[in-house]
Amino acid sequence: MMDYLAEERKKAEFDVEVMKIAWAGSEHAFRTNDRISRLVANDPEFSNHGKMTLTRKDLLKSTLRKSAHAWKIINELRLTEEEATKLRFYVDQPGYTDLHWYMFIPAIKGQGTEEQQKKWLPLAYKMQIIGTYAQTELGHGSNVQGLETTATFDPLTDEFVIHSPTLTSSKWWPGGVGKVSTHAIVYARLISMGKDHGVKGFMVQLRSLKDHSLLPGITAGDIGTKFGNAAYNGMDNGVLQFDHVRIPRDHMMMRLSQITKEGHVLSSSAPKQLQYGTMVYVRKVIVLDASVALSRATCIATRYSAIRRQFGSQGGGPESQVIDYKTQQSRLFPLLASAYAFRFVGEWLNWLYGDVTERLQAGDFSTLPETHACTSGLKSVITTATSYGIDECRKLCGGHGYLCSSGLPDLYAVYVPACNYEGDNVVLLLQVARFLMKTINQLGESEKLPVGTTISYMKRAHQLLHSTSDVHIAEDWLKPSSILQAFEARAMKMSVRCAQNISNSPTPELGFSELSADLIEAAKAHCQLIIVSKFIDKVQKDTTIKSGVKEYLCILCNVYALSTLQKHLGDFLSVECITPQQGALANEQLRHLYRQVRPNAVALVDAFNYTDHFLGSALGRYDGNVYQTLYNEAWKDPLNDSEIPDGYEEYIQPLLKQSFKYSRM
Amino acid sequence: MMDYLAEERKKAEFDVEVMKIAWAGSEHAFRTNDRISRLVANDPEFSNHGKMTLTRKDLLKSTLRKSAHAWKIINELRLTEEEATKLRFYVDQPGYTDLHWYMFIPAIKGQGTEEQQKKWLPLAYKMQIIGTYAQTELGHGSNVQGLETTATFDPLTDEFVIHSPTLTSSKWWPGGVGKVSTHAIVYARLISMGKDHGVKGFMVQLRSLKDHSLLPGITAGDIGTKFGNAAYNGMDNGVLQFDHVRIPRDHMMMRLSQITKEGHVLSSSAPKQLQYGTMVYVRKVIVLDASVALSRATCIATRYSAIRRQFGSQGGGPESQVIDYKTQQSRLFPLLASAYAFRFVGEWLNWLYGDVTERLQAGDFSTLPETHACTSGLKSVITTATSYGIDECRKLCGGHGYLCSSGLPDLYAVYVPACNYEGDNVVLLLQVARFLMKTINQLGESEKLPVGTTISYMKRAHQLLHSTSDVHIAEDWLKPSSILQAFEARAMKMSVRCAQNISNSPTPELGFSELSADLIEAAKAHCQLIIVSKFIDKVQKDTTIKSGVKEYLCILCNVYALSTLQKHLGDFLSVECITPQQGALANEQLRHLYRQVRPNAVALVDAFNYTDHFLGSALGRYDGNVYQTLYNEAWKDPLNDSEIPDGYEEYIQPLLKQSFKYSRM
Repeated sequence: MMDYLAEERKKAEFDVEVMKIAWAGSEHAFRTNDRISRLVANDPEFSNHGKMTLTRKDLLKSTLRKSAHAWKIINELRLTEEEATKLRFYVDQPGYTDLHWYMFIPAIKGQGTEEQQKKWLPLAYKMQIIGTYAQTELGHGSNVQGLETTATFDPLTDEFVIHSPTLTSSKWWPGGVGKVSTHAIVYARLISMGKDHGVKGFMVQLRSLKDHSLLPGITAGDIGTKFGNAAYNGMDNGVLQFDHVRIPRDHMMMRLSQITKEGHVLSSSAPKQLQYGTMVYVRKVIVLDASVALSRATCIATRYSAIRRQFGSQGGGPESQVIDYKTQQSRLFPLLASAYAFRFVGEWLNWLYGDVTERLQAGDFSTLPETHACTSGLKSVITTATSYGIDECRKLCGGHGYLCSSGLPDLYAVYVPACNYEGDNVVLLLQVARFLMKTINQLGESEKLPVGTTISYMKRAHQLLHSTSDVHIAEDWLKPSSILQAFEARAMKMSVRCAQNISNSPTPELGFSELSADLIEAAKAHCQLIIVSKFIDKVQKDTTIKSGVKEYLCILCNVYALSTLQKHLGDFLSVECITPQQGALANEQLRHLYRQVRPNAVALVDAFNYTDHFLGSALGRYDGNVYQTLYNEAWKDPLNDSEIPDGYEEYIQPLLKQSFKYSRM
Repeated sequence: MMDYLAEERKKAEFDVEVMKIAWAGSEHAFRTNDRISRLVANDPEFSNHGKMTLTRKDLLKSTLRKSAHAWKIINELRLTEEEATKLRFYVDQPGYTDLHWYMFIPAIKGQGTEEQQKKWLPLAYKMQIIGTYAQTELGHGSNVQGLETTATFDPLTDEFVIHSPTLTSSKWWPGGVGKVSTHAIVYARLISMGKDHGVKGFMVQLRSLKDHSLLPGITAGDIGTKFGNAAYNGMDNGVLQFDHVRIPRDHMMMRLSQITKEGHVLSSSAPKQLQYGTMVYVRKVIVLDASVALSRATCIATRYSAIRRQFGSQGGGPESQVIDYKTQQSRLFPLLASAYAFRFVGEWLNWLYGDVTERLQAGDFSTLPETHACTSGLKSVITTATSYGIDECRKLCGGHGYLCSSGLPDLYAVYVPACNYEGDNVVLLLQVARFLMKTINQLGESEKLPVGTTISYMKRAHQLLHSTSDVHIAEDWLKPSSILQAFEARAMKMSVRCAQNISNSPTPELGFSELSADLIEAAKAHCQLIIVSKFIDKVQKDTTIKSGVKEYLCILCNVYALSTLQKHLGDFLSVECITPQQGALANEQLRHLYRQVRPNAVALVDAFNYTDHFLGSALGRYDGNVYQTLYNEAWKDPLNDSEIPDGYEEYIQPLLKQSFKYSRM
């Protein structure tokens, strides 16, 4: 097999095999990923051939087929839970199993009593029931407290009556509800003795386990086609309505609240904070998924930019490689660096999850506010940047990026919902901002200050507010201390400025609302500081990274930091934590860094170790055989089944033959 | 019919009927748009029902059907050319006729001799031949000079031999080539007497007019599925290869070059600059299309933001309208203002096109360099902003924006190619930058300075480089002079800084290449100045605008200018044309402007006068009956044809019934 990228690979200045392990996080993780991704890639049942042209019915059917096949493989090969999760991940087709394994089962674990867990978990683990998570409603998204579905307790029969009182109370969006799930945890307002006790979760069976028909009183269907050619269209996101559906009392998830036979609602002694553990877990997964999505896109764009040539031909020679253009580098390399940055902050969230879990078990809730703010903010900033970055990679591939065979359109369409689910990105940043404002208001009272590493810079508020950058020449921007100082001062000053402006408002609430656009920018600054500092920590402190690759991670870290600074230069200059001169030096240093990335670019994306199956891109192929692949893929389109298109006789021939009686001129 | 937006419409402080005319540009334009768009909306043949779930074959067939029907209507009703163009526009489905009318016919007009025009135009006007424009190749996009297809002159037979020597020379992307077009203007390297004379256009017949079969030596097919659910998938963008296809000598388009029987290639006396007229025309159309696309998206997002409620419930009352959140306003209103800004700069380009045409006819080429730079730059900046803005509107609609029934996914997918076609947006900005650098180098020699309004500020270079902003309080930012001063100084200083940095490089070419990322930012600054100044001109000088609406256009103009300043604050501060303090005042003034837009927001999008057919959005409906429509649309999805999905017996039942022999735990 010809390797069209061989010359590029020779240019690399580090050992790509070592970088693969640094990217994966450990030798073990690398080996597992490698083995499972090849297992999936080599199994024809998991082929994605023709996926982009399937009808929705056939696409859903292919999801069902692949899910059943995955289940078969997982059992046949006796895969561990880790391996099974990776296998579903590399199959890379959203479907009902995502909801079953990552929402339904965790909800039972988190909200069910021991008894309830014993009843439902074994069935769910064996997939004898297939479950989902039904929270959002047609008229209500992020605001759980606004949900309208009711669960009215009837003490006469010891049952709840689940009901959808309005059109807008229809459950809307839950994956799997449309056609597949047999059960759902349904969120509804608990009404007992005429009183509204707020939103609780209830286990409701939706479909017969015998013939899959909907149970009496239940209406369910698919909510229609979604963005993208395949993307989430193989998932049956659904609408779900209840017409006085009765369920037994013990189907309320009772770990945190209970209801007695008489209808008295009791709060559990279990601390409510326990649910935060799940939230940190989910956001860690989202951040790591972002690094995967962005690395896939940058892998495609980088390889194709090395293959593609345009302009710059000297004396009839070949045109220049697109990757050599500074305009291409200045858009592509920051995204490549971001993929690495998000990967490492995801690793850190992994650690944080362990730390929070331990603390919660020990009854230590002191780090929760900071953890909540930092995971909310990172989820928001990183999913927004990733969705932007994927589309930017598509544009960096020129016109061919618009073809589904480039892989990029579907990568984008499947990714963008991450900006809305698990907390709308704007709402999340406002939560971060609230935490920052609260922290600033407590700066005088050190005993009240939240604990945790991401906020510790605020304790140096006085110093940061009066600090100036020590950058005099471009190379000074390579010092981690200079970068951190600038990012800390920016975040600090933006937050303080918001706090001051709020304090000039008639009331804090009015001020917060009026200034919310500024508060969001302050929250972003705080989150970008976290990402930068965790990347610096990784490079400086992680002893598992070998020195041969460490300096290239260092380059990427600097690219991430300085390109972020450049993109948000207005922030840095408006709070005067750097001078225009220092901004220009950062720009100069960035150009130098791009020159260092250039020869290593292909190796840096090879380090992701993605199979051609997982990339799913004619442009991103490992061997760089781009044009032949695009060409071959084109002929597979159903439109090429016949030379003469359907409709020729009715709609083309009459024009050409002027058999319309109308003609112009 | 219930109007859920009636309350919003009552809030408007201006007469929406008057604004409709200001938006359309004239009473005549408004009436024509109104009549033709209703004609299309009321014709069931043009219905878009079910479009998002059609297979490619059926989608192409629907394009053919609609195109034939449009042709029938155009002839039956004896529509004028203007009306026919509008009708095709409101049908809003990309197809082969776009290429035929807007590329093939103009190419014959621009590049054909009178004789050639007489031969082919009547056939084309009657659609007895269907043509397209085959320039780009699989391995060659923007760089026309890199094309590989050859047209070798054979004096023995007085013919050209059209040939595709390599895989990468395959024509790739031309619309209509895949399945429909009978003819194409093919761009190929003219080879005569062993010499390469560069790229010329040739009329080549592709398909038999009798049975539509491909002619001998021609291979053509579709290049495959593209981004989006419908979008361009009803267009047969094609691949086209030639195996020594012979065409007569007089099929070379000979207006600008001729070839004799003996094979001598002659340049025409017709000035080459004449082709620039077409270019200005095409870019004017692109800019006006951008304002349409962005206004559609903002119309949907604005109406839905007024309907949608989230959080903020006071004492059990309804939640707050999303449009009342400052975070929503600060993202949505700048896009609304941009739609108006692009509309008016498009009008100005219309004037410019007339002006250039007159000048060219009079042999005056003096304004061409400036016209070329400004149309290139506006195309680039405006299509980039529009494609970003459409996707931002989707995000502003929350999760429901991800449903195709929102109309936004397809609006995005159909729009984004505008960033690549007719000049890649980055390449175009580099051309603007070249022009700016050249202008700066000639600043000392006033006789060499390019003529034209968009560059006149550069003649005040000295003043601008030493000027400071006169803004002291937030209201000062409402003065057009203050806005213009800031935008002019920013553009001027950024260009001059680039020029200085280039002059410090070993060679100008090296410097230009090394600094190209900065040059692009300078070019953007120049283009944004043009947009701002044309908007200001429109509001200040256009006497057709009535005073009742003028002040609201003025508000939008200020929103456009100050939100652009805020977004690029780093530019303004780094070249020190405003102070951080003045930046903060702009931000403060912007908040005040958003408060003024708020009550008028729905009326400002009503002024676009779009039919529900053209909007194609459950969220953007005129009557605001959003949730019932989303609900009804959902049930129409083919996936809801049956309660039990295809694949249940094979892939779900075996799991639930544990008839797999494998089960876990």
